[in-house]
Amino acid sequence: MRPEIRTWKLTEKPFNPTHLFHSETIFTIGNGYLGSRATFEEGYPDEIAATLLHGIFNHHEQDLVPDLANVPAWFAVQITVDGEPFRLNEGRILGYVRELDMKNGILSRQVLWQSPGGKILRFTFERFASMADQHILAQQIEITALDEVQVLDCVLDFNTETALNIAYTAEGPVLVSHWKNASITYPAPDQSGWQGETTQSGYRVGILQQVSGADFRATESSNRPGNRFQVSLKPEQRVTVTRLVGIATSRDTKALSPFLEEKLGQAVEKGYNTLKTEHCAAWAAIWEDMDILIEGDEYVQKAARFAAYQLIIAAPQKDERVSIGAKTLSGPGYKGHVFWDTELFMLPPFTLTQPGIARNLLMYRYHNLPGARKKAKDEGFLGAMYPWESTDTGEETTPKWTLPDKHGNRIRIWTGDHEQHISSDIAYAVWQYWKWTGDNEFFVKHGAEMILDTAVFWYSRVEWNAKKQRYELSEQIGPDEYHENINNPVYTNRMVVWHLQHAFKTLNWLRTNLPEKAQALQSTLHITDEVQAKWQDIIAKMYIPRYEPLNVYEQFDGFFDKDEVNLALYTPRVTAMDVILGHQRTNASQVIKQADVVMMIALLGDELGDHEELMRNWRVYVPRTAHGSSLSQAMHAWAAARLGLVEEAYEHWVDAAGIDLEDTKGNVRDGIHGAANGGLYQALIFGFAGLQLDEKGGWKVDPRLPAWWKSMTFSFYYRGEKQTVTLKS
Amino acid sequence: MRPEIRTWKLTEKPFNPTHLFHSETIFTIGNGYLGSRATFEEGYPDEIAATLLHGIFNHHEQDLVPDLANVPAWFAVQITVDGEPFRLNEGRILGYVRELDMKNGILSRQVLWQSPGGKILRFTFERFASMADQHILAQQIEITALDEVQVLDCVLDFNTETALNIAYTAEGPVLVSHWKNASITYPAPDQSGWQGETTQSGYRVGILQQVSGADFRATESSNRPGNRFQVSLKPEQRVTVTRLVGIATSRDTKALSPFLEEKLGQAVEKGYNTLKTEHCAAWAAIWEDMDILIEGDEYVQKAARFAAYQLIIAAPQKDERVSIGAKTLSGPGYKGHVFWDTELFMLPPFTLTQPGIARNLLMYRYHNLPGARKKAKDEGFLGAMYPWESTDTGEETTPKWTLPDKHGNRIRIWTGDHEQHISSDIAYAVWQYWKWTGDNEFFVKHGAEMILDTAVFWYSRVEWNAKKQRYELSEQIGPDEYHENINNPVYTNRMVVWHLQHAFKTLNWLRTNLPEKAQALQSTLHITDEVQAKWQDIIAKMYIPRYEPLNVYEQFDGFFDKDEVNLALYTPRVTAMDVILGHQRTNASQVIKQADVVMMIALLGDELGDHEELMRNWRVYVPRTAHGSSLSQAMHAWAAARLGLVEEAYEHWVDAAGIDLEDTKGNVRDGIHGAANGGLYQALIFGFAGLQLDEKGGWKVDPRLPAWWKSMTFSFYYRGEKQTVTLKS
Repeated sequence: MRPEIRTWKLTEKPFNPTHLFHSETIFTIGNGYLGSRATFEEGYPDEIAATLLHGIFNHHEQDLVPDLANVPAWFAVQITVDGEPFRLNEGRILGYVRELDMKNGILSRQVLWQSPGGKILRFTFERFASMADQHILAQQIEITALDEVQVLDCVLDFNTETALNIAYTAEGPVLVSHWKNASITYPAPDQSGWQGETTQSGYRVGILQQVSGADFRATESSNRPGNRFQVSLKPEQRVTVTRLVGIATSRDTKALSPFLEEKLGQAVEKGYNTLKTEHCAAWAAIWEDMDILIEGDEYVQKAARFAAYQLIIAAPQKDERVSIGAKTLSGPGYKGHVFWDTELFMLPPFTLTQPGIARNLLMYRYHNLPGARKKAKDEGFLGAMYPWESTDTGEETTPKWTLPDKHGNRIRIWTGDHEQHISSDIAYAVWQYWKWTGDNEFFVKHGAEMILDTAVFWYSRVEWNAKKQRYELSEQIGPDEYHENINNPVYTNRMVVWHLQHAFKTLNWLRTNLPEKAQALQSTLHITDEVQAKWQDIIAKMYIPRYEPLNVYEQFDGFFDKDEVNLALYTPRVTAMDVILGHQRTNASQVIKQADVVMMIALLGDELGDHEELMRNWRVYVPRTAHGSSLSQAMHAWAAARLGLVEEAYEHWVDAAGIDLEDTKGNVRDGIHGAANGGLYQALIFGFAGLQLDEKGGWKVDPRLPAWWKSMTFSFYYRGEKQTVTLKS
Repeated sequence: MRPEIRTWKLTEKPFNPTHLFHSETIFTIGNGYLGSRATFEEGYPDEIAATLLHGIFNHHEQDLVPDLANVPAWFAVQITVDGEPFRLNEGRILGYVRELDMKNGILSRQVLWQSPGGKILRFTFERFASMADQHILAQQIEITALDEVQVLDCVLDFNTETALNIAYTAEGPVLVSHWKNASITYPAPDQSGWQGETTQSGYRVGILQQVSGADFRATESSNRPGNRFQVSLKPEQRVTVTRLVGIATSRDTKALSPFLEEKLGQAVEKGYNTLKTEHCAAWAAIWEDMDILIEGDEYVQKAARFAAYQLIIAAPQKDERVSIGAKTLSGPGYKGHVFWDTELFMLPPFTLTQPGIARNLLMYRYHNLPGARKKAKDEGFLGAMYPWESTDTGEETTPKWTLPDKHGNRIRIWTGDHEQHISSDIAYAVWQYWKWTGDNEFFVKHGAEMILDTAVFWYSRVEWNAKKQRYELSEQIGPDEYHENINNPVYTNRMVVWHLQHAFKTLNWLRTNLPEKAQALQSTLHITDEVQAKWQDIIAKMYIPRYEPLNVYEQFDGFFDKDEVNLALYTPRVTAMDVILGHQRTNASQVIKQADVVMMIALLGDELGDHEELMRNWRVYVPRTAHGSSLSQAMHAWAAARLGLVEEAYEHWVDAAGIDLEDTKGNVRDGIHGAANGGLYQALIFGFAGLQLDEKGGWKVDPRLPAWWKSMTFSFYYRGEKQTVTLKS
C-alpha cells in the first residue's frame, strides 16, 4: 500500500485478540448522527458493542447520571456453517484483515476461516453510516465456500443483547438496559424493525431494515428481530447479501414509523452501490475542506487524518441541540457527556473548516442557557454558569462520586462544583467563531447573549479580598485537575479577565451596530451600570497569581510551596501520576495534570507576555507537567511551536497522536479522546502553521514547520470565503 | 521521534505480553560472531532465550540433526526489591519502552515498575555486542528507587538455565542441553566465568565477565555463575552498574582462558563508554557502505534498514568457515542450518557492499567441498553435490522426517535428497561475486574449483532420455517445494544450463590467464574431454519444460495437468496454503510455494526471454503462487520491477517486509527470515534501481522507482572501488 493510500487507512492484520478493545474504538464509523463501534458482526466474547445516537440521553434509575442509551447493533449477523457458529474464538482463523478507509468512512473486514468441522469459508464484511443521508446505514456481506457446505444459515438481525449500558451504582458497575416498550415488527419476509423507548427521558428510537441477495424470511426470535436465509454452497460458490437500515428517533420526527419507511424506501430504491457512491461523495466534500496535507512525514499525515476523521464522524451536521461528548460517539467513557473538551479542543477545527457544524455546537450551548442559568441560581449566583458535564438538558450532570474501589471506597468528584472556567471557555469559542466566520446573525441572536450572561455570572462569582484589594476565586479547579478546591487557578482568573474584556467588546459592538439589541440584552440580562462598573473593576483588579522567585505565573495560590517531584524519574509512564502517587500525595505535590499556563500560552499568545516571559513559564511548567490528561500534549505542541521550540512541539504532537493510535494510555477501550484529536488539529493549524487573525483585519500565518516537512497545505474559511494555504519549510 | 530518527529504530511501547515472541526475535542484537535474542535480563515465562555463536554446532544424541548450541544468557540479572523479585509478570508495570537502535546496534529498555509490596523503581537496561571487537559484550543497568528500598539485591550472572535447545525426537520436541564438562570460576569478587564443551562436537565456549559500579561479590550459586551486590536506596537514589563480557570458543583459540582474560582485560581498561563509542563507530562504517537512503517513503526506509541490520548482525566479518543460517542467529528455527537462502538471498548484498563478508560466506562453501564431494559419492555421483542443509561439517544435515504431529505421524522430508539446484545456486553466487569484485585471487584459488566441481556433479547427474533425445532430471524439488519428487523443475534444469555455460567460461578464462591452473583443475577434478563434450551436449539438449497451450515455461513436467485452485479466494491468508489444503491436495494442485519462473526472471532477466515472453510467464505464474515461502515475495518485487510493473513490485516488497516486521506469517518467534531480508535488499538494488553489470564492462542502472520516492541513494563496490548512486524519480 503506497504512502498516499496508507495514510488514509487503519489496518489490522493479523488477528490479535488482545488488541480488540483498542481496535473496536479506533475503527468506529459514524456520520455525525450516530457512531458504531467496530465490534464484529458475529460478536466476540467481552466485546464492548455500542451504537450511540446524539442526544438520546437517559437517566437510568440505578445510575448516578444520565448516559447515552446504547442502541441494538444494526449490523449483527449470526452465521452457522453446517450447524457450527462462525465466531473468531472458535474454529481456526486462516487469515484476517480489517481496514478502516478514513477517506470514505467505510469499515471492512476479510476473514478466511475454518470451522471446527473443517469447512473453509471466506467472509467479507463492509459497512458504513451514510454521510449523504444520516438516517441510512448500509452493510454488504459476501460469503464464499471453499469446501462444500450443506447448510449455511445466516440471520441478519438487530442485536438487542448488546444494547446495554454500564451504570455507576453505589455497589459498583452493573449492566442495565435503558429501553422499555420495545416493539418488533416484520413488515415483509425481507424486512424487520425494532423500536424502543428510553425509560426515563422517553425518547423513541427506531431501526428498520431491508435485506436482499438471498431467499430471506423473518426470524422467529422474539427479542432479536431480523431476517434469515439458508443456502447450500458448492466449493468456490459465493453468496452476497446486503442490508439497508433506516434509523431515526423521536427527536427527528413524531411519526417515527412512516419516517423510517420512507427513508428506507428511498434507500432501497437507490440500492447499495448508489448509496455508497453518494456516501463517498459526501466524504470527499468534507475532506476537500478539512484534509491537511503534510509532505515529508507519513506518521503525522496519517495521524492528522485520523484526528480529523474522528472529529468528523462525531460532529452533528444538522442538529443544533446536541454536541460532541468527550469520548465522541465511540465508547462508553464519560457517558456521552459534553465538557470544555468540545469548545476549546474539538470545535475550533470546525470553526475554521465546517462553520455550520461549529455553529451547531455553539447553538447547543445557546439552547442550554436555561440549564446554565438554573445552575447559577441553584448555587446562588447570577447569569449563566455552564455545567462542567452537560447532556441533553443543559443541567449539571457531573457525578458526585467515583465508582467504589475494591474496598467500597468512593471519592468525591468536585469538578461539577468547582471547575468553573468552562463558562469562559464557551465565551472564548463563541468569540473565536464570530471573528473567523463573521457570522453576525449568530452573534447578534445567540453568541452575544452567551458571552454576556456568563459574564454576569462572573460578576456575581468573583470574591473581593478587601485586605489585598483584589478580586479572587476560591474553591476552584483549573485545567490542572490534580489540585482540587484550590484558590486562584491562574488559567481561570486570567480567562475571567479576557472574558469580561470581551463582554465589553460585545456590548460596544452591539451599541454601535444594533443599539436596540444592546439595549434589549442589557435589560433582560440585567447588565446594569453597576454590573459594568464592577466588570471594569474586575478587569483591573483580578488577581493573576505570580510567583516572584521564579518570575512566572503561579499555577494557583501556594503551588510552589508543594512538594517537588522529579517527574523525569517517573518515565516511561503509562499509568497516570495521580494513580502512581495516590490522590493525596499528588495533591500535595507540584505534579500537575496539565499546565494552566501552557493552555494560556496557546489561547492568548502574545497577550500573555513577551517571548522571554512565555519561555520562562514554559521552562518552569513543562518539567512539572505529568500529562495526566489527554488534553495536555496537543496544547503543549501548539504552545511550543509558537515559542519556536519546533522539535519539542513535534515530540508533544506525536505523543498526543499516540494516545488513540497507539493506545499509549491504555484506555482507548472506553472511547476516542476527542479533545486530543481536536488539539492535534489545532496544533497543526494554530501551532505549526501559526494561523491567526490579523489585528489589522484578515488573517496571517507564521509557520514553524519541522525541517523535514516538505510542505503543509490546508484550507479554512475566513468570513465565508475559502482560503487555501501551502507552506514550505 | 522525527522520521530521520524513527526509521532507524524499532520501538515497543507499551508492554504487550502477547507480542513478546515477535519482539524477542526482531530486537535481536549481534555482531556477526554471535546473536542474542532480546529476552529480558530478568527472564519471562515461556521466553525463547538464545545466544547463538557461529559454527558451534553439536549433534545431540536425541536429535535428528545437528543444532547451534545455545549458550547461557550473558546479560541475565536477578533483582529482588526488599525480597520480591523484579519480573514483568509480577507487580505492576507503570511504564515500559524497549528500543532497538538499528543505527548503532544497541538494545535498550526502560521500565517503571511497582513491586507487589508497593515499591516503585525505574530500571534501564542497555546492551550491545561490540561490532569493534567481536569477543566483547557489554551491558549497563541503572536502577533508581522512587520509594525507599531497604535491600536491593542484584545478581549479574550467566543464565545457564536458558542454555537449552529443542531436539526433534521421534516422540516430539524435547529440551536438551548440548553442554558437558561445564566449569565455573570466580577469579575475583567482581569476576565470574563459565565454560562448557559441546557433547558431541567437542567445541569449548567460554564467557568471562567483570562487573563494576557496586560492591560486588561472587555468587554462591553453583550452576549460574555471577556476581552480586546489595544496597539500600533512598527515594530518587540511583545505582548504575556495568558488565563487560569476553566470549570466545575453541574455534578461535586453543588457549581459551588466557584469551578471554586478555580480551576482557583490554575491555575493562577501555571501559563501557569507550567500548560503546568504538562499537558505534564500527556500525557507522558499515552503514556508510550499506545504508540505502529512500526519500518519500518512511516505511520502506525503515524496512530497508531493518533488512540490512538483520543481515549485518548475522554476517561473519572474520570467519570463513561459517555461514548464515536461514534464521540467522536470531532463533531456534532450522537449527542454524545453511540453505540456498544464503547464496541467492543474503550473500549478494554483501557482494555489493561488504565484499569481505561475501568472500567469507563463499569460502565456507569452499572449505566444505569435501562434504559436498562425499554427498555426491554417497549418492553415486561424481564431483561436488552441495547439501541442502549445511552445518559445520559440510555434510547433508537435512532431517529425514518432520516432527511427529499429535497423532504421532511424521512426514518424510525429501529436500535433502532432491532439492539439488543448490549446487548451481552456489556457482551462481561465486560467479556474481567474481564479476562484481574482480577478486581474481579468490576465483583462481577457490571459486573456479567450486563452479567446476559442481558442474562435474551435473555431468554425472543428468539423465539422457533417448526416446526424446534430451537431458532430463527426475525426482527433483525446485524452489516450489509444494511439489516434491517431480521431474524437470524448470528452474533447476535451466540453471544447470547456465551453470555449465559458466563452467566453460571459467575454464576458458583460466586457460587464457592461468593455463597451468586450468590444467591442474581439469586434472584433479577429472574434467576430461568426454566430460566437456557432454557438458556441451547438455547445454544444447537440456530439456527446459514449456507448456505450449499458454506458450510459457512449465514449472515442471505435467504441472498444468494438476488441479486449478483459485488462490484469490484464499485471502487474506496467514496460514500457508499447504497447511490449508493439506499436503496431498496441494501436491495435486497448481498451487506453488514460490515460482521457479519468477526466480529465473530475477536471476537471468533478458537471458530468459524478451519482455513479452517474461510478461506472459509472469501473468501465468503469479496467480498460481501462494508465497508459502518467505523467499517468494521479495523475488516477485525484483522481477516485477524489472518488468516495469512498479506498483505490483511495490506491493510485493511491502508484503515481504511485513514477514518479519509485522509477523504476517506468525512464525517470527522461531527467528528472522534471513532470505526475505536479503531479498528485500536485492529487490531495491537489482529490482527498483536496476543495477546490473554492463556487458561492455562496468555497471549500469535502469531505475524503476515508485513515483512517490523522491530519491534513492545507495553505494556498492565495483572491482574494489566504491560507487555511490543517487536516483530521482
